Amino acid sequence: MTAYDDLMAHARQTEALSQISGRLGWDQQTMMPRGSNAQRSEEMAALEDVLHARRTDPRLGELLDRAEATDDVAAANLRELRRDYARNTRVPARLASELARLTPLAQAAWEEARLADDVASFLPWLEKMIALRREEGQAIAAGGDPYDALMADYEPETDSETVAATFDRMRPRLVALREAVLGADSPPALTGHFPQDGQLRVSRRLAEHFGYDFTRGRIDLAVHPFSSGSGTDVRITTRVAIEEPFNCLYSTIHEVGHAAYEQGVGAEHLLTPIGRGVSMGVHESQSRIYENQIGRSRAFTGWLHGAMVQEFGALSVADAESFYAAVNRVTTGYIRTEADEIQYNLHIMLRFDLERDLMRGKLDAADLEEAWNTRFMSDFGYPVDRPSHGVLQDVHWSVGLFGYFPTYALGNVYAGCLYQSLRADHPDLDAQLAQGDTSAATGWLREKLQRFGALRAPRDTIAHACGFTPDEGPLMDYLEAKFRALYRL
Amino acid sequence: MTAYDDLMAHARQTEALSQISGRLGWDQQTMMPRGSNAQRSEEMAALEDVLHARRTDPRLGELLDRAEATDDVAAANLRELRRDYARNTRVPARLASELARLTPLAQAAWEEARLADDVASFLPWLEKMIALRREEGQAIAAGGDPYDALMADYEPETDSETVAATFDRMRPRLVALREAVLGADSPPALTGHFPQDGQLRVSRRLAEHFGYDFTRGRIDLAVHPFSSGSGTDVRITTRVAIEEPFNCLYSTIHEVGHAAYEQGVGAEHLLTPIGRGVSMGVHESQSRIYENQIGRSRAFTGWLHGAMVQEFGALSVADAESFYAAVNRVTTGYIRTEADEIQYNLHIMLRFDLERDLMRGKLDAADLEEAWNTRFMSDFGYPVDRPSHGVLQDVHWSVGLFGYFPTYALGNVYAGCLYQSLRADHPDLDAQLAQGDTSAATGWLREKLQRFGALRAPRDTIAHACGFTPDEGPLMDYLEAKFRALYRL
Repeated sequence: MTAYDDLMAHARQTEALSQISGRLGWDQQTMMPRGSNAQRSEEMAALEDVLHARRTDPRLGELLDRAEATDDVAAANLRELRRDYARNTRVPARLASELARLTPLAQAAWEEARLADDVASFLPWLEKMIALRREEGQAIAAGGDPYDALMADYEPETDSETVAATFDRMRPRLVALREAVLGADSPPALTGHFPQDGQLRVSRRLAEHFGYDFTRGRIDLAVHPFSSGSGTDVRITTRVAIEEPFNCLYSTIHEVGHAAYEQGVGAEHLLTPIGRGVSMGVHESQSRIYENQIGRSRAFTGWLHGAMVQEFGALSVADAESFYAAVNRVTTGYIRTEADEIQYNLHIMLRFDLERDLMRGKLDAADLEEAWNTRFMSDFGYPVDRPSHGVLQDVHWSVGLFGYFPTYALGNVYAGCLYQSLRADHPDLDAQLAQGDTSAATGWLREKLQRFGALRAPRDTIAHACGFTPDEGPLMDYLEAKFRALYRL
Repeated sequence: MTAYDDLMAHARQTEALSQISGRLGWDQQTMMPRGSNAQRSEEMAALEDVLHARRTDPRLGELLDRAEATDDVAAANLRELRRDYARNTRVPARLASELARLTPLAQAAWEEARLADDVASFLPWLEKMIALRREEGQAIAAGGDPYDALMADYEPETDSETVAATFDRMRPRLVALREAVLGADSPPALTGHFPQDGQLRVSRRLAEHFGYDFTRGRIDLAVHPFSSGSGTDVRITTRVAIEEPFNCLYSTIHEVGHAAYEQGVGAEHLLTPIGRGVSMGVHESQSRIYENQIGRSRAFTGWLHGAMVQEFGALSVADAESFYAAVNRVTTGYIRTEADEIQYNLHIMLRFDLERDLMRGKLDAADLEEAWNTRFMSDFGYPVDRPSHGVLQDVHWSVGLFGYFPTYALGNVYAGCLYQSLRADHPDLDAQLAQGDTSAATGWLREKLQRFGALRAPRDTIAHACGFTPDEGPLMDYLEAKFRALYRL
């Protein structure tokens, strides 16, 4: 046994335990009886203690010092393990424990504050969370930038300067496109009553058409849609709003995209450090290209229109073309999760700039609401009407997720690049999508990207798949072309 | 912190991890996608390694040496921990690992052998399993009886001589009662087609009427009904056979009985060594008294008859009295799990005698089938027609469960004692059961037994609840009275 073999045996067990932790999270959101919360917290804490001990085990450090890579796969596994070990051993146990205790309390305070539109009641919790995460960022950064250090948990091997530069180039084009679209005539929305059973049947058909492997996964209902697990057990959830079927259907496609990445990783990487998606940004590129570039395309919505008529009978919109317009309707609004393909990115950039300032000590919790409202007015052109439509709308900061938001927009940027290359390789794609056949598209993504897991760093993963260095150009060109045509601008 | 406090903190985490292991088992039987088997085995193995390391941790041994009990609860927790620690540290790691590897393979071989009615193909696996479990029994017994040592995993603080003496007193009475009943006119069975939805609705009503707490549990479908978990997350499963509704309904009541014990343990014992059922025998006493003494009583079946007519319309049996007879119908057969209250015990005694001889080296795998068939002929009066109706019918031995079978019949004996005391304390019980109201019965069991968890040793648990030392008398009196009346003997 070489040091590398020992290391991989250790990592494999850790990964197996981490999969169990993920499965418990799934259970908690889908199956757990409501009276089991306290016991479950204790069970999760016990498992987290085991995982933490394994991840900071000095024996792991010794093996990492001695292990040598003999091929690309080993090099990539060592890259992942070394980064995680350095990160985990830099965070003092006291700090990790304080964060673990604070998180559920701060989240509960946020939930109440959002319902009551009461920023003041959440401020003490947010202040505490910001302080702890700043400290954690500084500990991990070891002299570097604390925000970059936190962001690396979700999007490693990039830095926030690069992200900021990308976003700065996108923002004026997005603002201009948004204004032009909102100035044009708005197409009618899809209205009506769409029973749950029917939505779930169409959802399931969509999952099948996008290649979701039900022998290695399942779909359940949950309050918030998510995908969970790696390898041969990748489960997704969806939700149903009776009058808004696109909510359920596009949530499903989105989560199928995430699941496709995990289900698509080569079986030889099962339960190894690279046997999963390499970053949240690359993950989001898969969910977004499934949901948007493919799922909201004129061609694919043509098939979906037929599937919906078959399930629900005549719709409020007249034909496939109006259905396509309804799917891609752009309206004013406050909420990130309800935003269209254009405005979604503006929501992200706002959060990215604010949270970077928070972690760098340039903005404090007390000034956050005003900063949010000012920026929203500047990007969207109308004022935030209440905190639950503004600074209190997202759960992320209440649970300490600083550095996560940019991965959503990075995912869009990456999806834009991938889509450009996919179309170049498959000029006939629309004819297949119009039949509901996504196999050429999803097969291309599996072959070019998904099967490699975390073999390459995030940007290299995209570059390898696309054949060029990713930037925002393809996404912006795609958005402008799509929405200018749709709104006849 | 005293040594006892340290010990309990350690035990609490171990118990939390063990609950997780149980929940994964539940998931595997109810929710897991079928393609996830190999990954799940690896996940379970990783968690078992963690649990094994904790259970044999030398630090635990040191704490156990130093810890002192200051009250009954502490004494009981120490009793449980010391017994488990002694047991776990006596089994060589090599043996534990060989057993873990053999078990799924032997079970798979048994499944194939049973389908093919081919004892010979299973024999090599059974021989290997018997050899390993004999060795394990000897290691745990440390000079004592290997079968008793194995039985103590399921029914601690008793011995097989006592059990054998009890069974020897029961057997002639059971054989005589069985012959008398089978010689009388047999009442008609319930026939018809009972749709799954309706069976599950009645099942759910039954669970509610027996006090199952759905805020701390849930019911799902599984191939084999089971109850899983302790404390605030105790889940049960049931199954549906369209033409045999009693299968589903009485499986549900049976599992509700198990769950009631776990849900009923005092909240102050949550995740402590005594915070669960004390033995499989006492557990079975709860499931059996719910299912049989209460659920199959004339009074309660009167209510159930009404509930079934309400759900399914007119039944094949004319009235509540014929319904009661159909529920308690005694027929010839080969299969333990389909047996009535009388014959079930004969099935157990047969297995108990054979497996005790196997573990003591008085019987070998090669001679097992003949020994089974001879004994079956002697107790039941007709020959086994094929191995899947005989020696291959149960999964237990293929997965190394030697010493488990007697707990089923011990549960019946204990249920007989509990029922006698319950009726003495509640002479008006039938009037309530006839209304489908089990609250006096289940409340009595909770108050007298369930809430204490494993505070007292198994027989002491029953003696404390009944007010007398348990023996087979009450069960035998109950069976003879019930079936002599029902069959007008």
